[in-house]
Amino acid sequence: MGEEKNKQELAITVSKEKSAAEWYTQVLQKADLIEYTEVSGCIIFKPNIFQIWEKVQSSFDQKIKKLGVRNAYFPLFIPEKFFVKEGEHVEDFAPEVAWVTHGGGSELNEKLAIRPTSETIINDAYAKWIQSYRDLPLKMNQWCNVVRWEFKHPTPLLRNREFLWQEGHTAFETQEEAHKEVLEILEKYREVAEEVLAVPVDLGMKTEKEKFAGAEYTTTMESFLPDGKALQSATSHHLGQKFAKAFDIEYIGRDQKKHKPYQNSWGISTRMLGAFVMIHGDDKGLIVPPRAAENQIVIVPLLFKGKEKAVEEEAFAIKEKLSEYGAFVDDRKEYSPGFKYNEWELKGIPLRIEIGPKDLENNRVMVVRRDTLEKEEVAADDKFEENIEEMLENIQNNLYERAREKIDNDTYEVYDYQEFKKLIDEGKRCLVPWKEDKETEEKIKEETGAKTSCKPFKENREKSLEGVKCFFTGEEADTWVYFAKSH
Amino acid sequence: MGEEKNKQELAITVSKEKSAAEWYTQVLQKADLIEYTEVSGCIIFKPNIFQIWEKVQSSFDQKIKKLGVRNAYFPLFIPEKFFVKEGEHVEDFAPEVAWVTHGGGSELNEKLAIRPTSETIINDAYAKWIQSYRDLPLKMNQWCNVVRWEFKHPTPLLRNREFLWQEGHTAFETQEEAHKEVLEILEKYREVAEEVLAVPVDLGMKTEKEKFAGAEYTTTMESFLPDGKALQSATSHHLGQKFAKAFDIEYIGRDQKKHKPYQNSWGISTRMLGAFVMIHGDDKGLIVPPRAAENQIVIVPLLFKGKEKAVEEEAFAIKEKLSEYGAFVDDRKEYSPGFKYNEWELKGIPLRIEIGPKDLENNRVMVVRRDTLEKEEVAADDKFEENIEEMLENIQNNLYERAREKIDNDTYEVYDYQEFKKLIDEGKRCLVPWKEDKETEEKIKEETGAKTSCKPFKENREKSLEGVKCFFTGEEADTWVYFAKSH
Repeated sequence: MGEEKNKQELAITVSKEKSAAEWYTQVLQKADLIEYTEVSGCIIFKPNIFQIWEKVQSSFDQKIKKLGVRNAYFPLFIPEKFFVKEGEHVEDFAPEVAWVTHGGGSELNEKLAIRPTSETIINDAYAKWIQSYRDLPLKMNQWCNVVRWEFKHPTPLLRNREFLWQEGHTAFETQEEAHKEVLEILEKYREVAEEVLAVPVDLGMKTEKEKFAGAEYTTTMESFLPDGKALQSATSHHLGQKFAKAFDIEYIGRDQKKHKPYQNSWGISTRMLGAFVMIHGDDKGLIVPPRAAENQIVIVPLLFKGKEKAVEEEAFAIKEKLSEYGAFVDDRKEYSPGFKYNEWELKGIPLRIEIGPKDLENNRVMVVRRDTLEKEEVAADDKFEENIEEMLENIQNNLYERAREKIDNDTYEVYDYQEFKKLIDEGKRCLVPWKEDKETEEKIKEETGAKTSCKPFKENREKSLEGVKCFFTGEEADTWVYFAKSH
Repeated sequence: MGEEKNKQELAITVSKEKSAAEWYTQVLQKADLIEYTEVSGCIIFKPNIFQIWEKVQSSFDQKIKKLGVRNAYFPLFIPEKFFVKEGEHVEDFAPEVAWVTHGGGSELNEKLAIRPTSETIINDAYAKWIQSYRDLPLKMNQWCNVVRWEFKHPTPLLRNREFLWQEGHTAFETQEEAHKEVLEILEKYREVAEEVLAVPVDLGMKTEKEKFAGAEYTTTMESFLPDGKALQSATSHHLGQKFAKAFDIEYIGRDQKKHKPYQNSWGISTRMLGAFVMIHGDDKGLIVPPRAAENQIVIVPLLFKGKEKAVEEEAFAIKEKLSEYGAFVDDRKEYSPGFKYNEWELKGIPLRIEIGPKDLENNRVMVVRRDTLEKEEVAADDKFEENIEEMLENIQNNLYERAREKIDNDTYEVYDYQEFKKLIDEGKRCLVPWKEDKETEEKIKEETGAKTSCKPFKENREKSLEGVKCFFTGEEADTWVYFAKSH
């Protein structure tokens, strides 16, 4: 009885198709992903979601170490005076800063900003460390927490006031090296998103209006979520010499003259996890793609009187065979198999193996894929591990492909502003030919709620703009751009 | 010329033997370990020291995951009202808290503490999560930054205002399970310290006076440093039901009645890195034990005209053979071999391989151990990798053993208070028979500057106290305890 009641409380009660935003809120709590706290916008990342972040961390960390980036840790606190050094930067970030004014019982002489991003404190240090061309390239990264005290309505993971990220900060002798790295890093982000998390993304350029405050240009990785909103999930900025000028970073070059380095900064944050949750999953709950899962397989033994021992032994034997996938046996006696199925479907374990006395006799197991919920007999023979591996790969690919398809279906190529308004209103993403202009961009946002997501590299390479008019002004278009409502 | 000048600026100019504290300060900067910032007590962990922390992280993280601990992330900000819930805890920590009072341009309704430790916010959540015995044991851990706004003089790494650590928080049905875990975790800390970092430690019990605020008892891992001061490098606390009471954590037990769980918390921090730096190293700079080193081997090719190519090729071939040790070739053309030797000795790379045309001819290399600076010919034959591996193991063991010997030599078994005062004054550590008492402990501290480090498990098991008198009061002693000045 208690179990039945529990089952209902646990189940997702809204349709993802009909109400993605509410579905998201339910999954976050029922799949044990986050917990709210009394401080608005500050959440607890529970282990079920934190382990996905650990996958992002280990995957991206390995990639950047191969590029010669080294990890470091810079202070949480940034003295107020550092902020004012780069004009655009302070203008954008100052309104969102949380300030420490008291420490150890007394008021501080100078209030301290809690880092919303660390360009200022890092470049203050770089000015000391970069003295000669021999000190370049300098490539550091940190994994840390940052705080942005925004007043927009917080949405767990997607818009936290405190979130986790990595921020890479690099400096080069030549602008060419810097340009090259911007794209190299963006590609690493894409690999993590698409190949590990199975989250389809588009790479492109931010508009002048939406670029990072203090950057010459910002490249971005963009997702489009089932709730009809775009999400910027990682960015890679070229800072040019702006911070070098603001922080007096100067070095003696190969020519014995003074030079300023060219710099980049780039980051991916736990916002990505919000996209991950919302993109995968169905009305039964979360779905975790195998490569993102700590535990890819749950094994549920079906215990019938007198056969318990043999079945459990086989379950643990299978677990050993599949240990590289983090397989585990759910041998809890206080729950029924049905309860366990629901629980692990809710939490998104990619593959479930059921084994009962009949299966033992027939030397097989039943396997249920989380993505399709299809059930299949698999022989417990020589090819067993191979077959399981193949199924996991299929799940990984299928999740990516169906997410890609969903995004493609939600994206419309539009040439007309009236049609555009209608589609934006319906929560679609529009790819439009556009003459980039801050004022029209602002006006479109006011009229429709849509912002530019990015000027996609792919479409801008592939679709000619010759003779094509801007969907808004009717002038010559100079770029393709995605517009959508956004997180 | 410039290089010669550089060499002098880089070299350590004080003797570790004579002035360990000043030596420490020089090594921190010259070996590129830390950078000061404008905020007192907040330092930059540069990659050379951060990589040691990464070794601590990966090693300890693997160990606790095997124990079923899962990582999570709890907010940086703790509402003021949470603090007051556990009386002893708030009393100890409140004076050291940094407070956020403003966010996004306005004053906050309730000021927010920056976590000095997270028992309060975590137990507020545990009260929601622990409802049934089925929810136990609950074992979570987070790797994060914490801030303690102390007014003692900050010492980089050893006493930072912001530092990095992990904090584990666990809850159990029975006190026996909790007691067992306290010691299990402490043993994991010892493994990381002694087996990875080669830092000798003593395990023991904190006195009532020195235990964690809110704990029933605190077990501790203690180091004793060459500057004559003890350092608490990790602690594992049993909290009993104190926080469960303060935060109303209650669950329905197997007997269908309400119970409070028994809890532990435990942490190791970047203070450990301070012990690491100070314990290893000599007048040439830092020494990194092989198992703690990202790069265990540097290969320096000696380039003579006409032979450059052959030598460099061989250097890179050796690098490939030794890739599992993170071997790298220092092939910078702008520096002499002597300059490179000095640099890598300063930074503590465990093993240096020199290779020149003569070595090529004779099918050998010269190998220099960082710990002893001994130079040895090693044949580039079948046994080459094996020999190098053996040398690295020898270095690891030698560093541990000589550090242990130094600590043993600096530790005196003392029965007399006059002798005790003299030894403490000389920067020694004293093992004394003692009748534990907060007041005498306070008095000894006032008179000598020495605090209790721990009641060591080892000595208390091995050395009988029958008939032995307290070194201070002359009463029956009830424990052995270490006293020393401390960080």
